Amino acid sequence: MRRLQVKSSAGEYQVIVGRGAWRALRQLKGYTSSFVLTEPGLWTKWGEKFSTDVGWKEVRPILIPSGESSKSLTMAGRVASELLDRGADRKSFLVALGGGVVGDLGGFVASTYMRGIDYAQAPTTVLAQVDSSIGGKTAVNIHAMKNLVGTFCAPHMVVSDADVLASLAPRAFQSGLYEAVKHSILSGPALFKWMEGNVVGLQASDTAVLEQLVARAAAVKVDVVTRDEREAALRRVLNLGHTYGHALEEATGYRRFLHGEAVAWGMLMVTRLAELAGVLDPAVGKRIVNLVRAVGPLPELRGIKEERVLGLLIRDKKAVGGKIHWVLPEAIGKVRVTPDVPEAIVTTAFREVQRGVWNG
Amino acid sequence: MRRLQVKSSAGEYQVIVGRGAWRALRQLKGYTSSFVLTEPGLWTKWGEKFSTDVGWKEVRPILIPSGESSKSLTMAGRVASELLDRGADRKSFLVALGGGVVGDLGGFVASTYMRGIDYAQAPTTVLAQVDSSIGGKTAVNIHAMKNLVGTFCAPHMVVSDADVLASLAPRAFQSGLYEAVKHSILSGPALFKWMEGNVVGLQASDTAVLEQLVARAAAVKVDVVTRDEREAALRRVLNLGHTYGHALEEATGYRRFLHGEAVAWGMLMVTRLAELAGVLDPAVGKRIVNLVRAVGPLPELRGIKEERVLGLLIRDKKAVGGKIHWVLPEAIGKVRVTPDVPEAIVTTAFREVQRGVWNG
Repeated sequence: MRRLQVKSSAGEYQVIVGRGAWRALRQLKGYTSSFVLTEPGLWTKWGEKFSTDVGWKEVRPILIPSGESSKSLTMAGRVASELLDRGADRKSFLVALGGGVVGDLGGFVASTYMRGIDYAQAPTTVLAQVDSSIGGKTAVNIHAMKNLVGTFCAPHMVVSDADVLASLAPRAFQSGLYEAVKHSILSGPALFKWMEGNVVGLQASDTAVLEQLVARAAAVKVDVVTRDEREAALRRVLNLGHTYGHALEEATGYRRFLHGEAVAWGMLMVTRLAELAGVLDPAVGKRIVNLVRAVGPLPELRGIKEERVLGLLIRDKKAVGGKIHWVLPEAIGKVRVTPDVPEAIVTTAFREVQRGVWNG
Repeated sequence: MRRLQVKSSAGEYQVIVGRGAWRALRQLKGYTSSFVLTEPGLWTKWGEKFSTDVGWKEVRPILIPSGESSKSLTMAGRVASELLDRGADRKSFLVALGGGVVGDLGGFVASTYMRGIDYAQAPTTVLAQVDSSIGGKTAVNIHAMKNLVGTFCAPHMVVSDADVLASLAPRAFQSGLYEAVKHSILSGPALFKWMEGNVVGLQASDTAVLEQLVARAAAVKVDVVTRDEREAALRRVLNLGHTYGHALEEATGYRRFLHGEAVAWGMLMVTRLAELAGVLDPAVGKRIVNLVRAVGPLPELRGIKEERVLGLLIRDKKAVGGKIHWVLPEAIGKVRVTPDVPEAIVTTAFREVQRGVWNG
């Protein structure tokens, strides 16, 4: 079991990674009642283990349909109503047991129910364990835009049980590994090398290796959000691969790519962009490409219109104050955040990766 | 113009009270764009003055229907969508121009749009100027309960223009005065005496007196929320009259009483309760009753079932962690917050006020 310490404006909290991490929820004291928010499929698989681990009596979960459409204000209102019906008060505790959707929605509900109750993240995917469960960003989607409405609200605790990853579908599993790759690029040679040595052929059932991977990749996120909780500047480095990635997801209606897959394509494109901008040695670019490719096959980019992607990049630009903050890799462990990238090479990088004419 | 300083966890902000207070919004610097949220009727009356005072070009407000039903998650989502459509980003600014509904909804949207943008409260009712605009509580209603979902999020500035009160309907005007009476009970002999000398016959058009009243009553709220932003304990004193008041509002489906009117009845009942509990001198109780009555006539209590009100008090109790925190006046300027009040006298106080057998 590894314990990472996160500092936030609301105080410190721990990210506990490893087999049996859920048992840390037994330490909770002073709450009038506790609730768990999750999805039906997850509860079927893991409800009994969860109940045993946390030691609560007769755990009756609050269930939401699986899938992104549950990340809505309507669903947040329904969960709040159910909490009220079941007697939750200001001193109640909520556990969000699931992937990014449950975590983002659960965090949003916890941060707004009676103006805020304490909550824990119990992430069940690689993506959520290494990334989205840490840092206190909560969100719901508004029809017009993903994550348009949300809060910064640190969890009381993050408990990442490695055993639960074994039941992930291969594609969901790999999607999460791409975010771990991203963290290794940000982190430096040690973690990057470790990833190069361990990612090839990695399976969801390789619990011991995954426990290490999650702990090491989560530590990168912990370090960044501790130094910049509110995304003033530093936290932007976490957007490596996400600028193109978000545009790819949106251009394909969020149907073709899992989030990590879009980020993987985005990392390839931004690696090429960094080379074209003259800030990245192609030999290092090649290593990044190889590590991304080593995770597994990616859905094709075929048919995605260049103009559409560029249009979405510009819309994203508006959303962040008039500038695209490109996160360009300069070396393993070093990125440059800059708005000054000529549009021509932004297009070229996209085009070369899409057409497969550049591959590191 | 009076300037009150509020300290909050997010930094300090000013409450600016007086004629021309909106002009303080001219000082805003460094925002990419500014928006105003308000109701159609208010904008018809005050839009031109607002635009002139703030000096923005072509102000096009975001309009929500007037009334409590706008305080919903659905409406919050619509306002967020409109902000996005109109190009609002993380560095945009929102002004909530209106009464409690606009203030609570506007604050909620501002605190969650892109995980939080800066906002100002520009309250247009006595109630909002002396109470709800100060302290950073934001909220929307869920079908099951008022203010069930919300945030603590301090505004950047509160600008309370006294001129705008002149157009209030008499009943809405008086409703706000009851909250000012409440603040004077909490504050002490000086403000209470001033209220006794100024409330009788006070009109919405008495701008000079109102400017003083708002500044003095708002100062009480400023003092309390500065010392207890998150309602740990001290802030509970502001609930004087609200325990019965909320139950009365709910028992009548929020149709019979304006909020301040229900609080006024609640203050009478809790004054009697304090006498019955033996903590309040009846001579002081009489002064409180006289001041409440001096504001004007109240809608009748006829037909409200005692059992219904008691049932709602118990539900409220669940919502605050298993105990009703009664706020009992002990003297002018002194209240006792206690859960230890026998149910029998809670019923008696309600009954005696309802039947008019006790009147101070």
